[in-house]
Amino acid sequence: MQLFNNVNAMHEWCREQKKQGKTIGLVPTMGYLHDGHMSLVKAARQDCDIVVVSIFVNPIQFGQGEDYETYPRELEKDSALLANEKTDAIFAPGVKEMYPAGYDAYVEVQGAITGKMCGASRPGHFKGVTTVVSKLFHICQPDRAYFGQKDAQQLLIIKKMVRDLNFPLEIVRMPIVRESDGLAMSSRNVYLNAEERQQALVLNQALKTAANNIRGGERDIKKIHQQIKDMIETQPLAQIDYIEISSGENLTDLEEMRGEILLALAVKFGKTRLIDNLLVEV
Amino acid sequence: MQLFNNVNAMHEWCREQKKQGKTIGLVPTMGYLHDGHMSLVKAARQDCDIVVVSIFVNPIQFGQGEDYETYPRELEKDSALLANEKTDAIFAPGVKEMYPAGYDAYVEVQGAITGKMCGASRPGHFKGVTTVVSKLFHICQPDRAYFGQKDAQQLLIIKKMVRDLNFPLEIVRMPIVRESDGLAMSSRNVYLNAEERQQALVLNQALKTAANNIRGGERDIKKIHQQIKDMIETQPLAQIDYIEISSGENLTDLEEMRGEILLALAVKFGKTRLIDNLLVEV
Repeated sequence: MQLFNNVNAMHEWCREQKKQGKTIGLVPTMGYLHDGHMSLVKAARQDCDIVVVSIFVNPIQFGQGEDYETYPRELEKDSALLANEKTDAIFAPGVKEMYPAGYDAYVEVQGAITGKMCGASRPGHFKGVTTVVSKLFHICQPDRAYFGQKDAQQLLIIKKMVRDLNFPLEIVRMPIVRESDGLAMSSRNVYLNAEERQQALVLNQALKTAANNIRGGERDIKKIHQQIKDMIETQPLAQIDYIEISSGENLTDLEEMRGEILLALAVKFGKTRLIDNLLVEV
Repeated sequence: MQLFNNVNAMHEWCREQKKQGKTIGLVPTMGYLHDGHMSLVKAARQDCDIVVVSIFVNPIQFGQGEDYETYPRELEKDSALLANEKTDAIFAPGVKEMYPAGYDAYVEVQGAITGKMCGASRPGHFKGVTTVVSKLFHICQPDRAYFGQKDAQQLLIIKKMVRDLNFPLEIVRMPIVRESDGLAMSSRNVYLNAEERQQALVLNQALKTAANNIRGGERDIKKIHQQIKDMIETQPLAQIDYIEISSGENLTDLEEMRGEILLALAVKFGKTRLIDNLLVEV
């Protein structure tokens, strides 16, 4: 397994692989890898000749007062996990390497898909994401790039960006990986104390209950919304950021419960903001 | 020579060329080709195995009240010129093909380089340019892309975009091609009536005079600026949009006359807005 910190070296190496006719699978991450990330790596390993995993805590997708400084980093442990899954290359550039002095170019998806949910709570977040992902795509030239359904909005935005800007690659969506008690895996779970961790289980439970109610015939969007809200509010530490019921295809507001429906939420426990979601087919 | 109107077909064809190890040169144009464009095509023909010329009048780089509707189009004549230079493929997509319903992704270079000159006179113009050029790069996968020094600001912005977003290609700059009387070639010259056409010669003359004065030792930026202004104002039909003296490298304002200096201007004659520029090395 090779480790690259340099944009040009990474790019030349990927270019060489492509020249040899090999397909490249890219897994963009911010590191501190958990089984969710590893499921992406395993999928890439199965589909592609070459697996590249990027590890980069991207400053421009964090807002003021967010956790950029404290975001957990553990490159050595990550490297060991990735070596174990036969990753071919890690790309772990420094911030100056990705954003040199005078950096000024950005990629942005506009419209409803970025304006609501995490886009409303975290202004500029998705612009930071689409910019860094564009850079990674240009540097690594993947045939396929792997993203987790955990970040449902991010995934839809990246798919939209790829389609609209004609990026020559395929986005592969992988399901959410959960702890045995149902908490969606996240590098940020490490921030939770025992009590917060326990109360956070309500997120998956509320989503599952709502999905069951929909599958059982409930079609009243407001009612489902209220049920989720009521369930979460049983936990005293939970502060709801948003609960959204929208089209699983493009995040537009639903007029009726039909098609692929995304139940998504962001809730703070103490200082830790968690997101979770569930897709239901009606 | 092949003609493609379809994004996927163009992309697949370029992908096939790359697979065969061929280098691709792309010349992005809005058509109505003149010798300026053809100098780019000839350079691409010399440098690359495959030459692709795109012809697309890009609606999103035109502002309200600008000449999108009336911009001259002549695909058949363009095709004949390109066939004559052994162009391999023309990419001439329709607007819906490039911007389908619900289109929402944009690429933007921010900062001083886009905020002044044509960026100030034509808000949104360069965002439209960088977006369409990004799309063309993704579709055609060029090793090199050719742009004319005539659009000096556009060229610097695209170079900046390529560098910042790590596009895997080289931007080649080609010098301005002029009519025998010195008027910079432009598809928009066709709009000029005889009188406007005659008076427009002052642009190149004023730039040349200023460059000669600088080469002769003049270092006072304000004085040079005033000289250009005075000369242009001798022509009664000329309405100055801007005259700028800035760094030829990144368009920053000059504190002193040093390095590569760009003398650039935009002037209207009747309804026709012309741009011209000249680089001087001090």
